[in-house]
Amino acid sequence: MALGEFELIRRFFGRRAAQHSATLLGVGDDCALLRIERGTDLAVTVDTLVEGVHFLPGTNPEGLGHKALAVNLSDLAAMGARPAWVTLALTLPEADESWLSGFAEGFLKLAERYGVDLIGGDTTRGPLSVTVQALGIVEARRALRRSGARVGDGVYLTGELGSAGLGLKILLGEADIEAPEAVARLERPEPRVQAGLILAGIASACIDVSDGLAGDLGHILEASGVGATLEWSRLPLAASVRHYMVLSGDWAMPLTAGDDYELCFTVSPERERELVRRMTDLNCACARIGRIESLPGLRMEKDTRILDLAAMGYQHFSSGN
Amino acid sequence: MALGEFELIRRFFGRRAAQHSATLLGVGDDCALLRIERGTDLAVTVDTLVEGVHFLPGTNPEGLGHKALAVNLSDLAAMGARPAWVTLALTLPEADESWLSGFAEGFLKLAERYGVDLIGGDTTRGPLSVTVQALGIVEARRALRRSGARVGDGVYLTGELGSAGLGLKILLGEADIEAPEAVARLERPEPRVQAGLILAGIASACIDVSDGLAGDLGHILEASGVGATLEWSRLPLAASVRHYMVLSGDWAMPLTAGDDYELCFTVSPERERELVRRMTDLNCACARIGRIESLPGLRMEKDTRILDLAAMGYQHFSSGN
Repeated sequence: MALGEFELIRRFFGRRAAQHSATLLGVGDDCALLRIERGTDLAVTVDTLVEGVHFLPGTNPEGLGHKALAVNLSDLAAMGARPAWVTLALTLPEADESWLSGFAEGFLKLAERYGVDLIGGDTTRGPLSVTVQALGIVEARRALRRSGARVGDGVYLTGELGSAGLGLKILLGEADIEAPEAVARLERPEPRVQAGLILAGIASACIDVSDGLAGDLGHILEASGVGATLEWSRLPLAASVRHYMVLSGDWAMPLTAGDDYELCFTVSPERERELVRRMTDLNCACARIGRIESLPGLRMEKDTRILDLAAMGYQHFSSGN
Repeated sequence: MALGEFELIRRFFGRRAAQHSATLLGVGDDCALLRIERGTDLAVTVDTLVEGVHFLPGTNPEGLGHKALAVNLSDLAAMGARPAWVTLALTLPEADESWLSGFAEGFLKLAERYGVDLIGGDTTRGPLSVTVQALGIVEARRALRRSGARVGDGVYLTGELGSAGLGLKILLGEADIEAPEAVARLERPEPRVQAGLILAGIASACIDVSDGLAGDLGHILEASGVGATLEWSRLPLAASVRHYMVLSGDWAMPLTAGDDYELCFTVSPERERELVRRMTDLNCACARIGRIESLPGLRMEKDTRILDLAAMGYQHFSSGN
């Protein structure tokens, strides 16, 4: 089936009208045109998913459409920004209508849920990959940076850790465990958009856990010029993840596996009560897992021992070499 | 050679400081943060270049870095926007340092020339492709849309037509002509940024010629609900392109070949004198090649005959099928 590029974009992605009054012009010209309100700043992020690297060949297109957008909304959440606009660059081996229809369904459903306008697209022929750029709005001077963690702050995490990592092991046949919820977490991560908006007034630093807690928290520590010790007993782990760890002895998995898309953030002791109240109101699970310290590096307190967690994050170009 | 993803981005692309005071935060956090001035709108565009589709395997990385940015700056130019920020999503089969260094050189040199800040990046492993998203600033209500052409307006083109198309034929061995300047036009297109800024106050509609004049002008006609007749004798063609056409009999090439990245635009007769004066001041070649008419469709007047040019544009998914 041969469809022209422009027809493709219009047919599958151009069907919805702009949701924002600030979207002056969406898909269909050389550029989109946006109006940014006074007193707000623009947060910009970009992420690529490549078949065989970030998702398995044959991945369900509807889930992939969801995930390609979700990982970018997660980056906006980590800055405390409200998602507003996205562009989509889709490279496909062929213009497969049923694949495209599924992908668009997953992508647009999530976009609609958060009031995000798709304002630009490029469809090209080639090996399957998806690049999404997301633009969000954040009140001036309220954005959550990685560099604001201070000695004495608590280290917190939304939700649970390691479920997406377990999901990947199940799909790869490396874990003989029945845990459909772990596979769902891998395939359809839920960006912590509302939590990020709340944290913009409370947290001192924030990052989303995309490459593994050890590596991602490491970015906060490096940017802030501090260190941290985590407490093993406080890590929020699903029962299936605990079960996997007992079976395999692979206790490091929840610290190094990516794709959880939870928020890891730091909060000063004075703001902890407010944090707990706001996250409870939101019905968002949130655990204090450690403490910021002046000694550089990342450590784990486990059964009265202190372990060094340096350099446990996933590195795209250095792993497997 | 194994370099971590973050190190890669920092090493080759993070070395330059922000050029804009409006860049609150560049590469290195979950998102970049930008401040948009009051009274201005944001223009957003995205383009992907895939090896084997948009550029030949083995293309010089420095030229590719230039071109990946140039095609996006060209989209901004077509809106009359001033380029300000870009993000880069680079997918590479391997972290080849010499390739990356060349690519970054070509990309950053052009970025610096137009005062553009690289504010975000994603480097992933996979088949070679480059997605660039560019953000530009345009005075409120001055953006050049495709939909503003009116009956009686002249149709204009900057520069020359068909040189990039000839360059591609030379590289593919399909044209036995000595024309290094045509190959250079293909490999290092020059975005018409300054011309676009001038046109924002003068033109009624504008587009950049990326997919071929016939198809791209067709978008203006469709969006504006009008038609046009071009005059063959007025098309600005380089001597080498004329030579190729005589040798091959392929007179349609300059109308259907892409990659010229000239601006095609419409101007009302009352503004023509101002246009000519401003483009002369800029030292930018500019030719009137036809006229907007009420009869829909695109026609060419050639040797007293009128030819129908409908559907001569390049369509990524329908060509070659």
